[in-house]
Amino acid sequence: MPSFYSKRDLYFQLFENQNCLELTQIPYFSDHSKETFTLVLDAAEQIAEKSLFPIFKEMDRQEPQLVNGQIKVHQGLKSIIQKFGEDGWINAIFSYEEGGQQLPWTLHMAAGFIFQAANYSASVFPFLTTGAANLIRTFGSSELKEKFTPAMYAGKWQGTMALTEPDAGSSLSDLTTTAYPTSTAGIFKIKGQKIYISAGDHDACENIIHLMLARIDGAPSGTKGISLFVVPKIRLDGTPNDVLTQGIYHKMGYKGAPIAHLMIGSTEGCEGYLVGEPNQGLKYMFQMMNEARLGVGMNAVAIASAAFQASLAYAKERPQGRKISEKDLNRPQVPIIEHADVKRMLLFQKSVTEGALALLVFCGILSDKISQMAYAEEKLELEALLDLLTPIAKSYPSEMGVLSTSMAVQVLGGAGYTTDFPVEQYFRESRIHPIHEGTTGIHGLDLLGRKIWMHEGLGWKKLQAHIEQTIIQAKQEEELNQITEDFESVVKRFGHAASGLLFKRNLDPEKFMADASLFLEATGILCIGWMWLRQAVSAQKALSQGASDQGFYFGKIETATYYMEYELVKIQGLISRFHSTSFPTVKMQSDWF
Amino acid sequence: MPSFYSKRDLYFQLFENQNCLELTQIPYFSDHSKETFTLVLDAAEQIAEKSLFPIFKEMDRQEPQLVNGQIKVHQGLKSIIQKFGEDGWINAIFSYEEGGQQLPWTLHMAAGFIFQAANYSASVFPFLTTGAANLIRTFGSSELKEKFTPAMYAGKWQGTMALTEPDAGSSLSDLTTTAYPTSTAGIFKIKGQKIYISAGDHDACENIIHLMLARIDGAPSGTKGISLFVVPKIRLDGTPNDVLTQGIYHKMGYKGAPIAHLMIGSTEGCEGYLVGEPNQGLKYMFQMMNEARLGVGMNAVAIASAAFQASLAYAKERPQGRKISEKDLNRPQVPIIEHADVKRMLLFQKSVTEGALALLVFCGILSDKISQMAYAEEKLELEALLDLLTPIAKSYPSEMGVLSTSMAVQVLGGAGYTTDFPVEQYFRESRIHPIHEGTTGIHGLDLLGRKIWMHEGLGWKKLQAHIEQTIIQAKQEEELNQITEDFESVVKRFGHAASGLLFKRNLDPEKFMADASLFLEATGILCIGWMWLRQAVSAQKALSQGASDQGFYFGKIETATYYMEYELVKIQGLISRFHSTSFPTVKMQSDWF
Repeated sequence: MPSFYSKRDLYFQLFENQNCLELTQIPYFSDHSKETFTLVLDAAEQIAEKSLFPIFKEMDRQEPQLVNGQIKVHQGLKSIIQKFGEDGWINAIFSYEEGGQQLPWTLHMAAGFIFQAANYSASVFPFLTTGAANLIRTFGSSELKEKFTPAMYAGKWQGTMALTEPDAGSSLSDLTTTAYPTSTAGIFKIKGQKIYISAGDHDACENIIHLMLARIDGAPSGTKGISLFVVPKIRLDGTPNDVLTQGIYHKMGYKGAPIAHLMIGSTEGCEGYLVGEPNQGLKYMFQMMNEARLGVGMNAVAIASAAFQASLAYAKERPQGRKISEKDLNRPQVPIIEHADVKRMLLFQKSVTEGALALLVFCGILSDKISQMAYAEEKLELEALLDLLTPIAKSYPSEMGVLSTSMAVQVLGGAGYTTDFPVEQYFRESRIHPIHEGTTGIHGLDLLGRKIWMHEGLGWKKLQAHIEQTIIQAKQEEELNQITEDFESVVKRFGHAASGLLFKRNLDPEKFMADASLFLEATGILCIGWMWLRQAVSAQKALSQGASDQGFYFGKIETATYYMEYELVKIQGLISRFHSTSFPTVKMQSDWF
Repeated sequence: MPSFYSKRDLYFQLFENQNCLELTQIPYFSDHSKETFTLVLDAAEQIAEKSLFPIFKEMDRQEPQLVNGQIKVHQGLKSIIQKFGEDGWINAIFSYEEGGQQLPWTLHMAAGFIFQAANYSASVFPFLTTGAANLIRTFGSSELKEKFTPAMYAGKWQGTMALTEPDAGSSLSDLTTTAYPTSTAGIFKIKGQKIYISAGDHDACENIIHLMLARIDGAPSGTKGISLFVVPKIRLDGTPNDVLTQGIYHKMGYKGAPIAHLMIGSTEGCEGYLVGEPNQGLKYMFQMMNEARLGVGMNAVAIASAAFQASLAYAKERPQGRKISEKDLNRPQVPIIEHADVKRMLLFQKSVTEGALALLVFCGILSDKISQMAYAEEKLELEALLDLLTPIAKSYPSEMGVLSTSMAVQVLGGAGYTTDFPVEQYFRESRIHPIHEGTTGIHGLDLLGRKIWMHEGLGWKKLQAHIEQTIIQAKQEEELNQITEDFESVVKRFGHAASGLLFKRNLDPEKFMADASLFLEATGILCIGWMWLRQAVSAQKALSQGASDQGFYFGKIETATYYMEYELVKIQGLISRFHSTSFPTVKMQSDWF
């Protein structure tokens, strides 16, 4: 059994707590079955265990370096990326015609969870290529698709998402990279700078294909004037394309993946190929962004999950101290997992990681259903729900992943702070997630400023209906009465507070939006509570049906209880904040600090 | 002005919010004055700015290494430690007869705050020597004192605290290092292993003097059989003392300070010199531990404070995005400090670091008063209060320091995750504090299991009286009505919850102690609320008296408001937890995870 994830829990999430097999009813996925899904997960585990995990530490210690304008990465990556290509991972979710396997994205994410738990940095390369290729195949011409995607699917060429610039990070509307038309339609000369480009340059692939946002010369300002281009590092004729690697960022963690600073067209020699229509670039990007954001949520869960498993193993083995009630010092010390406070630290991690994994699987299944759905009204409802959940499913795992990996360090104590154990690395790696693919602050604005209002609150209403439905199911399980009651009362109180908050919108936009991050945090706590109630129902049902591994299900119910008792209660402080009419974060002046 | 701490705030804490000058009324400190205190702080700033801060990054990048059994540290340290010795920092708090300056410990801590904010790793060396020397001068024979302390005071010899062993970390009662009597009284042969020994070996000093806990052969088991020894690396006659550096720990942060694994007497050649009476070692150690723990609290505040200053400077300079109410994209971007959510992240850091600094200064003044006090009853009261506050003043800054430095990273976004800015290093360094000098879990047990009950709750009652007094003062300031009301209502609710919790003690010790860490967390939130109300009162008074730098005081009041609105409310979830009768952390079984 691999040490870096719980296979038992992943299967519970996919096949018991939620039923991903319902996707096989959809024609596009109909060749799939529990057997093919299991094969996929087994294959992922094999690569993770044999190729990714063994170089997890090494990739951190031997950071990528910029040598003569070329970034050099860990030597093991070349064969790993190739294998991802050869085994069909990069285009697995695409259609048979494209050489894909029509695998549900949910399963692709589940496999990703295994890869990321084993070695987050290594897992990033093929996933980026999938995302970039997906943009070309969805919005690009058949020519672009034919020329670029096959080598990307094969793992020979790396794909990237090139958005950020020195003066345009959170504020993408300010990007200035410019595309100048040439005499050939669709071909532009690009000029500008891109920073923080993940896998933006490296020597484990033969070429780097940037999916780059730029502004066609003379385009409108703001987000309405942004277009999307394919910008290869090396042109199809084999000549260099004037994309220079100006620098590499050295980072706190996630060191194995190179992050580049690129100069585009500094000697006027960069060609870019327009994807789709002009000025539609941000729209295209954002249609893929939902999945990228859920992907970041999954990355965060995977790292936290690996840290949880490592601290759990340590807590079971490390003897230290005696039970509170044990006074006899001649009795041997007990494993630290016997101490309530250590169990609390483990339950915290278990509740965060498994609760967030449940939410991401829920979102994955939603996304797969939407992708194959024609009927307008139901599709709109599911889309509204997924749109609403996306900032939550990105941010809760990201923010809590930092706290969860921190708790893993704490379980190990002094040992956890040393590089002899992997938890300090997980802690460092987890810190990127509240930042990339939109900071938590940006997602707060997205949720409270946009998502909750879309289609007259349709997503919010659907979420409430889902939660209500889970409460009804839970009420049928007598053993869950207490936690159901606790949860229901919080749902009501939060509902009132949220309504109250929404009514403030018209008063003062600055004040209304001031607590957007806290609103995001509160909805996250609520959604994970919902997921724990759901898991408790699934577990109670399994127990009623005489499941053999009772301990697993008892653990689920006890963790759900922990969540309601220790985590859900944190919403109380947030609720009282939403009722407040005092706004120190607005009133505070920059020169008062 | 140095970038790594706020001089303005430190002076506010020492001379306005609290009045450390009242210490000069005590005969021992009577030669001191605002002038000498200011000279001390200025001197500290000079060393910090000229010697410590310039190698802050370097010490992280060029980690100490174990080479042929000897740990090599950064080359700059030798002259720094010497300077600490020559300038009288190591024995500054000791008496004139000992060559000291009879400096209040509060000022020593305040100078430490400046050193630690500039370069935590470098600051550790002299402070450890002070602590070790203090044990010798307080409990050792005049012979030991004469032989060992002068070179320690001079910065030539390094002092350490050698407690932890492979099987005895949190559970010190299980330590097994053994001391065998020799034919010479007071001289023992020591045999055992010590791990995680800070500055346990290095080449910036000529000798290492370990203050080591060991069990005299045949001594009672548990803490009652532990004695304290002076164990030098090199004996006074210049021969080696069979203390071998078996290993060095590589760590996530705080890398500049070497942490050693020592083999003691592996070839039967280690001499140790008994300090004081046999079997009193842990008692001696713990009489120094209070100050060491407050010292850790200060370390944590200093690092968080440096991170706060770095993120504040960035937020004032970095343009990104526009105000919520600004729709015109052609207007220039604003510095991110203009965004309410960024101000929230800065206010969080300000409230944590300045609130915790206030508490530590309060504890420092208490400690100085106690140290020079003869009269039994008042001394007992102050001691009880300080004993109670110590786990809080160690743990709140330590736990919140991790979150505060994390927030500093978040303010910088992607830049914060890179090694181009110092915040990622602060984040890594801060993570040690909830672990060393007793983990947060251990301090929770200490507070709820011991401190709160001592002298029939005397410390707890004194704390309540102090808080009550601050509330009375605050009520006289009309402008503070709202936050005073908010705070007072929480004090009452927490008081009820705490009483309820205490009554549960006799029911089931496992359950009663299960939430000790949360109780510690809640009292921490409360005490910092008290400190913010106190700061608001001081600020309001200054404003009423027509202070010139109004912005500073407005900032204090707004931060107090922030604290009550955003941080104090977090106690609500904890209070509801204390009322609960469900104990999942006790019920959970290790094989259910």
